[in-house]
Amino acid sequence: MPEARDRKTRKADALAMLSTESIDVWVATASAAGSPYLVPLSLAWVDERVVIAVDGSSVTARNLAASGTARVAVGHTRDLVMIDVILERTLDVVADETLGEAYVGQADWDPRRSAGYLFLVLRPVRLQAWREANEIPDRTLMRDGSWLV
Amino acid sequence: MPEARDRKTRKADALAMLSTESIDVWVATASAAGSPYLVPLSLAWVDERVVIAVDGSSVTARNLAASGTARVAVGHTRDLVMIDVILERTLDVVADETLGEAYVGQADWDPRRSAGYLFLVLRPVRLQAWREANEIPDRTLMRDGSWLV
Repeated sequence: MPEARDRKTRKADALAMLSTESIDVWVATASAAGSPYLVPLSLAWVDERVVIAVDGSSVTARNLAASGTARVAVGHTRDLVMIDVILERTLDVVADETLGEAYVGQADWDPRRSAGYLFLVLRPVRLQAWREANEIPDRTLMRDGSWLV
Repeated sequence: MPEARDRKTRKADALAMLSTESIDVWVATASAAGSPYLVPLSLAWVDERVVIAVDGSSVTARNLAASGTARVAVGHTRDLVMIDVILERTLDVVADETLGEAYVGQADWDPRRSAGYLFLVLRPVRLQAWREANEIPDRTLMRDGSWLV
């Protein structure tokens, strides 16, 4: 197991990972009845927000519209960034050209030609980063929406 | 994008992935109030069941005890097996020697010395496997607990 990184290094690594081109995010949501859902989606990291594009009729879109919360993970199971997010903004994919360009600049597809697609802008509330068991301590890098480091 | 696999190939690939040594699973659960949770855990695939070991006081253990359901993913975002599961059995990690040996034989740690840990045995109800967009059709390989292929 490699040596545990300090929190400053983890933050830099986390921001680099979130800004990687063509990277995906695991998005966990839940229905009001408590039914869990999980799906991988393309990610854009724009102005410290997680931006995803989804069909407005998808389970993820419906769950987020109802609950306003999700828990998302980027990376793989032994080198990850885990973020609890709240839904900040929902908009048609053609409604905000700057956001659309930012999304397409990072993701490897363009949802703006897909009828019924929405951008969901998700604001991080808590952000954690860890690799293996020795990095479980100090994994929290953001709490209540504020960076701790 | 590679050519889409047929369903028979996907089933063989899925079973091989689920049986890989030291592989992890993303486990999405939800509280009764509809709060989503997500965490990576070590996986054992035993008699066509997803077996995880968790602290009995963890969010995942509590959510599964309350709801009886989870949605779990193995692999990475562009080559994955997604399984909707129901909780079949909860037992102390030292209660079933055969299960314990099977878990330790696949995972790369031994939870049997961890006080308060439980094995959760999760029965697949629906299983899907896909890589990229061209594999979204035909991704369902099991429905209502029965293999379709």
